[in-house]
Amino acid sequence: MSRFGVLVEVRLRPGIADPAGSTVARALPALGFEGVEGVRLGKAVRLTLEAPDEPTARRTAEAVAARLLANAVMEDYEVLAVEALPNAPEEGPRP
Amino acid sequence: MSRFGVLVEVRLRPGIADPAGSTVARALPALGFEGVEGVRLGKAVRLTLEAPDEPTARRTAEAVAARLLANAVMEDYEVLAVEALPNAPEEGPRP
Repeated sequence: MSRFGVLVEVRLRPGIADPAGSTVARALPALGFEGVEGVRLGKAVRLTLEAPDEPTARRTAEAVAARLLANAVMEDYEVLAVEALPNAPEEGPRP
Repeated sequence: MSRFGVLVEVRLRPGIADPAGSTVARALPALGFEGVEGVRLGKAVRLTLEAPDEPTARRTAEAVAARLLANAVMEDYEVLAVEALPNAPEEGPRP
């Protein structure tokens, strides 16, 4: 087994209102930021998991997102990145 | 000016406790997911903005993240992607 870091984005579906994002967008001109048309707030979830290979790590992350992270009615999810990680250091002898 | 879509991740710094992420991680075995060592929850912010070029779009997004999206004490931010978008359709004549 190998260790992988997987980044999953969970975002509101297009067309679903995002009041929090709109609030941020409206605050920006007062902070001196011009030209920002829209802001959409979502979740960025980083999973550290063990899997035999990268495709399996990706499928596991997608299953976790579908089952637990995303609200199937209003949200989409997408695996943005899968990265091999160094194996965790072996547990040395207890002092 | 051109339109850009920018994806910014705002995440807790390493070492900062993430009780929500730990709660998700602890729930996974009961849902049949083995091998998930850790879960870190953060924000995925999608900005749609106008800028003369991509580097400027990136800098604007970083400035927005630093100023408004990330808590400087506990969070890091990172621009994950900058993508050119088609220009918004010209406002046609009102009916």
